[in-house]
Amino acid sequence: MKLFHILDAKQFTREILEDLFLRAIRLEKQPNLGLLAGKIMVTLFYEPSTRTRLSFETAMIRLGGNVVSTENAAQFSSAAKGETIEDTVRVISGYGDVVVIRHFEEGAAYRASQVSSIPVINAGDGTGQHPTQALLDLYTIQKELGHIDDVSVAMVGDLANGRTVRSLAYLLSFYKNIRLFFVSPPNVRMRDDIKEYLQNQHIPFEEVDNLNEVASKVDVIYQTRIQRERFSSIEEYEKTRGIYIITRETLSLMQSHAIVMHPLPRVDEIAYEVDNDPRAAYFRQAHNGLFIRMALLEKVLVG
Amino acid sequence: MKLFHILDAKQFTREILEDLFLRAIRLEKQPNLGLLAGKIMVTLFYEPSTRTRLSFETAMIRLGGNVVSTENAAQFSSAAKGETIEDTVRVISGYGDVVVIRHFEEGAAYRASQVSSIPVINAGDGTGQHPTQALLDLYTIQKELGHIDDVSVAMVGDLANGRTVRSLAYLLSFYKNIRLFFVSPPNVRMRDDIKEYLQNQHIPFEEVDNLNEVASKVDVIYQTRIQRERFSSIEEYEKTRGIYIITRETLSLMQSHAIVMHPLPRVDEIAYEVDNDPRAAYFRQAHNGLFIRMALLEKVLVG
Amino acid sequence: MKLFHILDAKQFTREILEDLFLRAIRLEKQPNLGLLAGKIMVTLFYEPSTRTRLSFETAMIRLGGNVVSTENAAQFSSAAKGETIEDTVRVISGYGDVVVIRHFEEGAAYRASQVSSIPVINAGDGTGQHPTQALLDLYTIQKELGHIDDVSVAMVGDLANGRTVRSLAYLLSFYKNIRLFFVSPPNVRMRDDIKEYLQNQHIPFEEVDNLNEVASKVDVIYQTRIQRERFSSIEEYEKTRGIYIITRETLSLMQSHAIVMHPLPRVDEIAYEVDNDPRAAYFRQAHNGLFIRMALLEKVLVG
Repeated sequence: MKLFHILDAKQFTREILEDLFLRAIRLEKQPNLGLLAGKIMVTLFYEPSTRTRLSFETAMIRLGGNVVSTENAAQFSSAAKGETIEDTVRVISGYGDVVVIRHFEEGAAYRASQVSSIPVINAGDGTGQHPTQALLDLYTIQKELGHIDDVSVAMVGDLANGRTVRSLAYLLSFYKNIRLFFVSPPNVRMRDDIKEYLQNQHIPFEEVDNLNEVASKVDVIYQTRIQRERFSSIEEYEKTRGIYIITRETLSLMQSHAIVMHPLPRVDEIAYEVDNDPRAAYFRQAHNGLFIRMALLEKVLVG
Repeated sequence: MKLFHILDAKQFTREILEDLFLRAIRLEKQPNLGLLAGKIMVTLFYEPSTRTRLSFETAMIRLGGNVVSTENAAQFSSAAKGETIEDTVRVISGYGDVVVIRHFEEGAAYRASQVSSIPVINAGDGTGQHPTQALLDLYTIQKELGHIDDVSVAMVGDLANGRTVRSLAYLLSFYKNIRLFFVSPPNVRMRDDIKEYLQNQHIPFEEVDNLNEVASKVDVIYQTRIQRERFSSIEEYEKTRGIYIITRETLSLMQSHAIVMHPLPRVDEIAYEVDNDPRAAYFRQAHNGLFIRMALLEKVLVG
Repeated sequence: MKLFHILDAKQFTREILEDLFLRAIRLEKQPNLGLLAGKIMVTLFYEPSTRTRLSFETAMIRLGGNVVSTENAAQFSSAAKGETIEDTVRVISGYGDVVVIRHFEEGAAYRASQVSSIPVINAGDGTGQHPTQALLDLYTIQKELGHIDDVSVAMVGDLANGRTVRSLAYLLSFYKNIRLFFVSPPNVRMRDDIKEYLQNQHIPFEEVDNLNEVASKVDVIYQTRIQRERFSSIEEYEKTRGIYIITRETLSLMQSHAIVMHPLPRVDEIAYEVDNDPRAAYFRQAHNGLFIRMALLEKVLVG
């Protein structure tokens, strides 16, 4: 159960996840432990993602650690001059105790980890992985519903390109009696690699076109954005997306214990009228990112 | 006298101001109290204002607190993707203990405060408010002259668009026997809303064209920049502004106890030859921003 | 041996250097002294240099100090509005205990120091000085070889424009029995000012065209980048630079105790195949920047 680099949701097991969730619960209750006093996190962000960066930095500080930060490493004079990420990370790993990397290129965090003497945490690399998002999503289900086994989840929106729903589907396969519904326009359906994986794992899933068909059946609606550029015309886009917006009407179909999740930022795929319903879990979900990142930092830096 | 959000100079009373000034004096003498140990300030700056940001961050650290920071939240991927400031602040308020917001839109800090579970401090929103600047200006008068009652102030420059002089005129109305002189070109005179307010409060004020007319009469000359774009031509601008520049000649007219203030940055509306005169109070004024922000943070986070 | 502002390699003496190196060795072994608890470093970077900035910030934190930071002070609203660096620094020096300045203009750090009430450290100003780089270079020679007296150094690449090699040549003149080889294309040879200085100091140096001629003779090969824009054509550039690339072949000529240094970032002037050779000292050199900056901060802030 040792962890060093955190690169990919696929490196986790149910045992690791459960250990992390217990840590997260404990750290939410007793955050200021001075656990990481004297330790330094370096954030190396090649594309801006202020929410993720601030969440990592706050997690470090709430454990007594320190942060040195770069908001825009792509303007990093060295990267601009043609330095490889490997050279950059070799130097950075001489300064800090853990480095958090966000990059626009898939595989960047892995390349960094190959030369780093300190733990590398992937905070999202292009269309690749964003493992801490996957962890906080799963942790939110556990915290909100009290269990992950026996859960049915509707994943909604752009399932072809959404990094979060792909990783979540993967991690859910570690649990028992999971049912998945993939709710998406035909042009952005969940890709075959995940569907084949789920079939091999005997996880039942169903593809549906309309959210209202399944809203009453599921414990979790996981909403994502649909991006205009995936559609051939504005008209096609506008016509399609209306079907996938979560409104008060959707809430009226949902069970009373069910929740709505969203990785944020949200544009208008969840109507603002939904925010005050207790089933709107997305802001609590974002807040959980803090605790899960504290748990990961503890595990990686203390053990 | 409780304060939570700090949004607008209008929310203060003389009682609150006096309490803050006493705190500022105490904290200047004994800064490292560890008062805010374990607390986190999030700075969310949608436009750069490094001076203001560094002043807030230093104030937090000098009380033992921590800071996570964003220099350019407008490039914040979420804002760029169309996220509202309300959604951003809902998430941020799950990470930190106080959030300092600078925004280019009037009213942004107020909107943020409506959804925030932690104190919001307005560090300037567009042409709207910049309440901590108003506080440090008033505090500087108190510290330099020993009193605010009985003070005469000449406000100089662009009084129509200057956020600082408007707020200062408002706050001075809480004090006794105040006299104001508004010294400006005709096209950027103090606006009617403030003049009507002062009339209702029985604060005497006078509008004059030339600084030299009043330099000998006042305790404070509060200088501001005049921006070129307010004038119809470069010639008109150049001709006008010369009258308002503070030089050694202005100093020779001023009383020995009087002071020159400026919110900074200064371009050339105060000649550099003035800097070494003891009556040049503008760098001390900027320094006071640190202490007044410490006082505010103490009041808001500790009580 | 007192130091306040750190502006220029020329302000050092052999005595100061030896004192700093002893401090660096001690601080590498026992970093978390809480020596600078309650102190604040302000980084004021008018051009990005993330490596240098993170190195300074980490050094401050490893001594228990705090950091407030600006990644891009040129977009600093005040600089954009026409504020002088003198005015900016007058204000900043009211907030922090030490200010680290990087600027695109030669002489900027000196100008800042003239008005600052707190120590100014020059982190590189244009084509001017970068004294902490010079210190860490010399410290690396001391640490890697055990001595600086009696050392022969080949400086390779663009010696006309390279700030680092100029400063290093200057500092080496404090030591006994130094021999220098300047290895460069004819159009970017070491400039006359340094050559005259060395002649006056009776430091022998030789100019050579080809690295392989001297690789076997020296204790240190100090490689730098050759920039394309120095050559009249791409063909000329490509033809020339091949001669100066350090490869496994160069290593085969070098003595077993000799080292390869580079100020980084490297593009391809050192082949990646060289990295795993124990004589490749450039990543250790970058790491030494942390310790030498800790030593400087201790000397400047504690004495």
